[in-house]
Amino acid sequence: MVNYPNGKKAADAVKQTNYGKRGMSLEEDINTSNRYYLETHKAVVYKKPTPVQVVTVDYKSRQTAKITEAYYRTPSTTDYNGVWAGLPLDFEAKETHSKTSFALKLIHPHQLSHLRNVLEQKAIAFVIVRFTHYNETFLIKAVDILKETSTDKKSLPHSWFSEHGRLIPFKLFAPVDYLPVLDKMIQEGEFE
Amino acid sequence: MVNYPNGKKAADAVKQTNYGKRGMSLEEDINTSNRYYLETHKAVVYKKPTPVQVVTVDYKSRQTAKITEAYYRTPSTTDYNGVWAGLPLDFEAKETHSKTSFALKLIHPHQLSHLRNVLEQKAIAFVIVRFTHYNETFLIKAVDILKETSTDKKSLPHSWFSEHGRLIPFKLFAPVDYLPVLDKMIQEGEFE
Repeated sequence: MVNYPNGKKAADAVKQTNYGKRGMSLEEDINTSNRYYLETHKAVVYKKPTPVQVVTVDYKSRQTAKITEAYYRTPSTTDYNGVWAGLPLDFEAKETHSKTSFALKLIHPHQLSHLRNVLEQKAIAFVIVRFTHYNETFLIKAVDILKETSTDKKSLPHSWFSEHGRLIPFKLFAPVDYLPVLDKMIQEGEFE
Repeated sequence: MVNYPNGKKAADAVKQTNYGKRGMSLEEDINTSNRYYLETHKAVVYKKPTPVQVVTVDYKSRQTAKITEAYYRTPSTTDYNGVWAGLPLDFEAKETHSKTSFALKLIHPHQLSHLRNVLEQKAIAFVIVRFTHYNETFLIKAVDILKETSTDKKSLPHSWFSEHGRLIPFKLFAPVDYLPVLDKMIQEGEFE
């Protein structure tokens, strides 16, 4: 969804595909974790489908409606939401290949505005940020990210995440095992 | 998403398009209500995008990636979820043109299974059913629908909805004004 091969050259396409695959891994890890949470009855969290504006459909039969012209649309919300033991969860996930900092523009305006809206409705709202170089995945409260995006800062240094975020442990069945982290934060009154 | 014109004949196509439009109106009414709830800071509820399996994309430029082959996929969840004053909401919406009964097959197995899953996580889970002929829109607790779908019943008579459901009032800015109905039900202990 983020990295499209530009299709100019075969070499470029391959490069772009690899880049795309790397870009997908946090998403894949979160999806795996969510499947594990679903199967073990811990939580029900899904990634929302990418919205697509369908223009033309070829209806050879009702069963095999083939979309022949469509475009990606900008989502209005964050990518993930769900329910966990009576609590509404809502979050966005981003990864950066930078060693030094996280560019705040990676979190888009509609995602920030959605996080503000769900916070107002008392959702457990947060952002998951991965520094791929260090293979570190942080959970940051939405309220902390929103404080920074309301300034004129362009990026947050890696150290900001060590300070304000919590490291999410890797587990075999839940590569981004965020629920125990949330649980601890809630017990410590972090979401009040 | 439900009613595709089959494209066999122009006359058929027009008929199917009209049918499709009628089929969309509950969805449109709910979307309007959700927009009103969002704008008035009452709740944050969205319809999930229809999942599409993209096969081929024409990348003339990154900005205008054109999907040239894609197919509709079966969603894993209900269509609507969100957060309202700290409560996780999850629901499906269906309408029927029948005067006498609601065919239970209109609620698909994956939707029933999802409702079971979110109920287990203590979501406020329900179904909105409209009888278009009477222009009546009911809110029914998921737990009540799940009781009926676990029997071998094929349909529920209109009277079942008067008995087990709550009529959702029409308001100009919220054509399916379900929040006050939920509020009353919660106060009456219906969701405990």
